[in-house]
Amino acid sequence: MESREGYSGRILEKLNGIGAHVGDIIRVQRGAEVLEGTLIPKSHATDDEYLILKLKSGYNVGIKDGSEVSIQLLSHGVKPAFKKPPIPSRSGELPKVSVISTGGTIASRVDYRTGGVEPALDAEDLYSVFPELADIANIKTSVLFNVFSENITPQHWKRMAHAVADAVRDGAHGVVICHGTDTMGYTAAALSFILQNLPIPVLLVGSQRSSDRPSSDAASNMVGAVSTAIQAPFAEVVVVMHETISDEALSVHRGTKVRKCHTSSRDAFKSVNSSPIARFHVMEKRFELLNDDVRKRDGAAALTLEDTLDENVALLKFYPGMSPDILESLIDRGVHGVILEGTGLGHVSSSFYRPVERAAKEGLFVGMTSQCLWGRVNMHVYSTGRDLLRLGVTPLEDMLPETALIKLMWVLGRTRNLPEVRSMMTKNIAYEISGRRWQWEEEGRGRLQ
Amino acid sequence: MESREGYSGRILEKLNGIGAHVGDIIRVQRGAEVLEGTLIPKSHATDDEYLILKLKSGYNVGIKDGSEVSIQLLSHGVKPAFKKPPIPSRSGELPKVSVISTGGTIASRVDYRTGGVEPALDAEDLYSVFPELADIANIKTSVLFNVFSENITPQHWKRMAHAVADAVRDGAHGVVICHGTDTMGYTAAALSFILQNLPIPVLLVGSQRSSDRPSSDAASNMVGAVSTAIQAPFAEVVVVMHETISDEALSVHRGTKVRKCHTSSRDAFKSVNSSPIARFHVMEKRFELLNDDVRKRDGAAALTLEDTLDENVALLKFYPGMSPDILESLIDRGVHGVILEGTGLGHVSSSFYRPVERAAKEGLFVGMTSQCLWGRVNMHVYSTGRDLLRLGVTPLEDMLPETALIKLMWVLGRTRNLPEVRSMMTKNIAYEISGRRWQWEEEGRGRLQ
Repeated sequence: MESREGYSGRILEKLNGIGAHVGDIIRVQRGAEVLEGTLIPKSHATDDEYLILKLKSGYNVGIKDGSEVSIQLLSHGVKPAFKKPPIPSRSGELPKVSVISTGGTIASRVDYRTGGVEPALDAEDLYSVFPELADIANIKTSVLFNVFSENITPQHWKRMAHAVADAVRDGAHGVVICHGTDTMGYTAAALSFILQNLPIPVLLVGSQRSSDRPSSDAASNMVGAVSTAIQAPFAEVVVVMHETISDEALSVHRGTKVRKCHTSSRDAFKSVNSSPIARFHVMEKRFELLNDDVRKRDGAAALTLEDTLDENVALLKFYPGMSPDILESLIDRGVHGVILEGTGLGHVSSSFYRPVERAAKEGLFVGMTSQCLWGRVNMHVYSTGRDLLRLGVTPLEDMLPETALIKLMWVLGRTRNLPEVRSMMTKNIAYEISGRRWQWEEEGRGRLQ
Repeated sequence: MESREGYSGRILEKLNGIGAHVGDIIRVQRGAEVLEGTLIPKSHATDDEYLILKLKSGYNVGIKDGSEVSIQLLSHGVKPAFKKPPIPSRSGELPKVSVISTGGTIASRVDYRTGGVEPALDAEDLYSVFPELADIANIKTSVLFNVFSENITPQHWKRMAHAVADAVRDGAHGVVICHGTDTMGYTAAALSFILQNLPIPVLLVGSQRSSDRPSSDAASNMVGAVSTAIQAPFAEVVVVMHETISDEALSVHRGTKVRKCHTSSRDAFKSVNSSPIARFHVMEKRFELLNDDVRKRDGAAALTLEDTLDENVALLKFYPGMSPDILESLIDRGVHGVILEGTGLGHVSSSFYRPVERAAKEGLFVGMTSQCLWGRVNMHVYSTGRDLLRLGVTPLEDMLPETALIKLMWVLGRTRNLPEVRSMMTKNIAYEISGRRWQWEEEGRGRLQ
């Protein structure tokens, strides 16, 4: 039974019938459609009717069983021996980089028998998966935890921040955090606020395709992140991921301005309302700074962790027909602040005026961002915007809604005094607000404030 | 007092002091900063401390008064006479196009005295604002209502659909709907589902800059939309807006695949997970079809309005630290269905498993889209996705979250039977789902279903 892990019912009978075990190569046919791959164990949570195959492309596929589905055993799987290479002797002389693993597929190695992915636990594993690293850095690894990034919470951000502090104390030249891509943008924003007075760069890196797949971006992203950790002149929290779908270059995005903008593409991460601050040329292993306005690396800077986060906040994306009761009920439940993801320049329907006014009267912070994502809110152009300003809504410039939410957690962790909250939310703390340019400036007009 | 409409307090005193009236050109100085423009009336809703100027660039600007602000009268305003030109004699022979105004700035003319914008009520007004139209079409105009698009509700969508039906009965060759840009994408999606068996094209058009501004996109968008209404071989609901920030070309976006992706730029509208189906070359007034897979124009098609919409639905954008109570309380309040805007390939944290399972057990539809916006959800890749599938979540392919929400309103308006709702939500009704390609196909692999 062990070797048919997780399978049951009719599928188990079929597997028994052909003598197939987990790790074996099988062919699944349905009508004219044929798929071949390695049978992999099924999580207990997966629907009973699904068979899970790891295709040669590296994708795991769930195939729904049915009377028209036939299964054929092609060959028995062989588990390749996994030999750890010795740690290269040079590495001790190289700059120290701390690699912190939090989950995600990048700092992992694949069990070729099962197709399962395990965290790469130590430096030896990491060098064996990414041998180029041995020529670049003296890597200290730690597995902080191992969670899918959709399960990351503010508590995890605090633990990451403390791990960064440990690495700084340990003399690291830079810190690389391996992270699942789903919420990497949120974590990057959170660390940008928590890690105050940072002496060295902190680089979040992930991969959109796991390292056992030919199209994987894991190696280039990992090598790029470690190289950038050493070469970068800045001390900021950034995300290092593919610039395009090719392997040519990586983009280094500011932690407060970056967002995952594609479910699966390798160039999913984009800087929004800002440009990447650096580029890493993969083939030449060359770092290129694209923006001089960066927080400089400074070994003398004394890192402080401002890690009190108020999680009692909410992000509401507005849509036509949205019930204002959703906001009313958040206020009823005692939420401390709300970020609205409004339409266009920063609007919600007039049916929201009442709860917005109530929120402001009860001392809650209500901030406005735009669901357009690109561009800046401007609540002086239309009367709806001016109405909302009058009711106490604070416009949040060109901040991403996600970044605004996390900043609000962080600000409310410092103060609940509404004027102070408003002042901090509109002050640039970690490059979350791009240069305060009003629109008419783009047309060569004067400057108002 | 009439001539200082809306002003009070200290600002009114300053205006009285220099003898400035609404419509006059004034100069406002604060320190080294100077702004000149026309004093325009203030909405009663605007903050007392603000002075509203219409700049030469066309922007209305609110300037906060203060002791350091000085105001100077430059010249008294003159209200230019507004002469309606005669309706061109040729227009009766040209194809009939129905232009329906719902608000927004495009089908409006500006009162140059006050800077206020009024809806262009009749064909004469429209020809006077956009003289090129006289050579293109015989235009029948109607002002359906006049609301900022952030205040558009499902009730307005129904009224628009009925107005389209009237135009079809009246023999229109195409229908152009002038609409504010904030929620134009939502309206386009709604009409795509409501207007079944459409015989002619329905084109939503707006402008990002009002027609009194030199950089306005109003004329090119309006002329492009009316021309496309006549030349397009398709009978679909589309959005016609600038392709780039230049005036060279307009993009024709499918109503279910379009989204406002910039707060202020002229090329704010983008097709997501799809390409524009046509282009309109502004200078040559030339229509170019870019996609052969369109629903063909068919004079014999008998339009039906499927306009029952269930507004008791919600769109929830997930974020780290989000309280599952938000979903619980929606279920408590008897919501009929929820669209989740999950992370990455379609995930939410495991803390949402309980309310998701409860929703499914209580017969609610829970659909998954991705906050990445670009790309397709795939809930077979990671165990979180498979868990959510098992709990009853329906993956919605590459549908925009906004489109998924509106489709759910429409589907629940037809049936509350959960298997039927699921089946309709995953069936392509108005091109809302792009070709069902699994990711490995992109790597040349076979087809599963």
